[in-house]
Amino acid sequence: MAPSLATADITKHLQSVLPPTGREALATSVLPALLNSIASIAVALRAAHHVALAGGTNAFGDDQLNVDVASENLVREALARCPTVATASSEEDPVERSVSSVSPSSSEVYTVGFDPLDGSSIIAPNWTVGTIAGVWDGATAIGSRPADAQVAAVLGVYGPRTTAIVALRVPGQQQPVCMELGYTESSQEKGDGHWDIVHANVSLVTSTPPKTRYFAPANARAAAEDSNYRDLVLHYITSKYTLRYSGGLVPDLVHMFTKKHGIYLSPVTAASKAKLRRLYELCPVALVMECAGGKALDAATGASVLDTPLAHTDERGGLICGTAEEVDKAVEWLGREAK
Amino acid sequence: MAPSLATADITKHLQSVLPPTGREALATSVLPALLNSIASIAVALRAAHHVALAGGTNAFGDDQLNVDVASENLVREALARCPTVATASSEEDPVERSVSSVSPSSSEVYTVGFDPLDGSSIIAPNWTVGTIAGVWDGATAIGSRPADAQVAAVLGVYGPRTTAIVALRVPGQQQPVCMELGYTESSQEKGDGHWDIVHANVSLVTSTPPKTRYFAPANARAAAEDSNYRDLVLHYITSKYTLRYSGGLVPDLVHMFTKKHGIYLSPVTAASKAKLRRLYELCPVALVMECAGGKALDAATGASVLDTPLAHTDERGGLICGTAEEVDKAVEWLGREAK
Repeated sequence: MAPSLATADITKHLQSVLPPTGREALATSVLPALLNSIASIAVALRAAHHVALAGGTNAFGDDQLNVDVASENLVREALARCPTVATASSEEDPVERSVSSVSPSSSEVYTVGFDPLDGSSIIAPNWTVGTIAGVWDGATAIGSRPADAQVAAVLGVYGPRTTAIVALRVPGQQQPVCMELGYTESSQEKGDGHWDIVHANVSLVTSTPPKTRYFAPANARAAAEDSNYRDLVLHYITSKYTLRYSGGLVPDLVHMFTKKHGIYLSPVTAASKAKLRRLYELCPVALVMECAGGKALDAATGASVLDTPLAHTDERGGLICGTAEEVDKAVEWLGREAK
Repeated sequence: MAPSLATADITKHLQSVLPPTGREALATSVLPALLNSIASIAVALRAAHHVALAGGTNAFGDDQLNVDVASENLVREALARCPTVATASSEEDPVERSVSSVSPSSSEVYTVGFDPLDGSSIIAPNWTVGTIAGVWDGATAIGSRPADAQVAAVLGVYGPRTTAIVALRVPGQQQPVCMELGYTESSQEKGDGHWDIVHANVSLVTSTPPKTRYFAPANARAAAEDSNYRDLVLHYITSKYTLRYSGGLVPDLVHMFTKKHGIYLSPVTAASKAKLRRLYELCPVALVMECAGGKALDAATGASVLDTPLAHTDERGGLICGTAEEVDKAVEWLGREAK
């Protein structure tokens, strides 16, 4: 049984931050559906003691785990109940397939791109993993500039607790919103839980300098070939930044929001190709980061992740994101003339 | 309500690996009690969306979180029901206090040293955290050599699932045992779950070389002052080891067991004092590591963690543990003449 969702307070809050008209379905249907699927995935993961290969590979050639398939199905089931979601695609099935026949008179038409379970390599050791989803205006994301078309992003976080980050930046909205929600199961019976707002304003921006600085160097093996990256990692070490790197994009990001500081680097080098998917990973993560006052740049080009139109569903990139001043410093460092 | 525990299968398995007589209470009471408390802590953490300072500091001067206090109480409550546990002490209350009046005729008398919730810094961002416990023969651990007196260790792992590692090395036992258990809540009601054996033999030893090598450099800031540590980290990077470092001792160890390879380093330098507690962290972790075929050495002395008698409950050390050949290499590297 899928958990039902006590959405009243969340929906009310979403409505209070969204423009007064034209976004009803986002607040009452699409985002609640995604949160509902995250709660369902949390329950499914809790019993998944035998993480196994499902026997196939996904469209990108990654081995599929049984929990990947289960999570994919739970998000699809939830979206199928959303009359304004025209299409959806995912890292497991990267084709924008029809979900609902949206009425031509509807003011809202969305496509959702999602990675149902990010962090496959750390599921077996029982480390925190996540779900990533972006909600775009229109029936396709292809050809759109994410900064214009991607209006919301949700990160589900499966750890000791089940939490979620919701970011919203809709044209006409007064200011971007980034908030943290927590899921509580009923004490009576599973499937009767509710989401609450834990932090209404998640922000990397503080008036005081951080006491501790954090760095998360993804793909550190790339530093074997890239002396700039190697020097940058050494710079963080000798400057006594604290290392936290789980290897899961969602937990690595969420760590920054709690500590109000951080820099995440997934550089691209000649030997180490870009591997993060723009539609399923980079764009949602970049929206969350910007709504929290941080920055997210493509590591290969130095351009804002959200400025570049999406070419196709398999498009990839590197990522440098986090506290704005740290991102700028890292881009400068990595862009230096090779020694 | 504390979860009740369906222990039949676990107890039967424990009895099958322990010597035929003289360890009944370990299999039927002490280890089940610790597993029971881990299940209870998992349930408590799941609802703890507001991680807050409890207002005090523990005996070591660390800030106490509300979840630290709750976890401490749950372990103490479980141990109080064990008639062979004479005393217990913890990182939160590091005095060996009386638990049960053990009958003078009892063949079993134990003391338990535990860290109820390890990984305080990563609880707020919802990363995997753990519980660490060691079971020692006798009413005190002080003065004993861990290799002789510490007969069992349990690691609780709170992530998307609730899992546990149980290690057993009792005099007279045929061979050391290290196993992974998984906790499943009842689908009907919380508090009615059960533990199952997921892997009866957790081992770092494989007949084939690992495809991927992993490193976890704790206290990387120490590399700012220690050129040997800095060079070693650089060596791992240039040799293309994969970085995984959560900053939680339990998840960092458990990662190795899943990948069957790993090296965890928490060195001690002049500027960076030893901070891991021997009774509450190092000794249980070292027993688990050795029972899984790995090694655990004191980073300061290069001696086996379990060879050195415990001087007092606040004794501390560094740690180098993991795959035996990696541990030997790291010790040699760190012990080089300073440049």
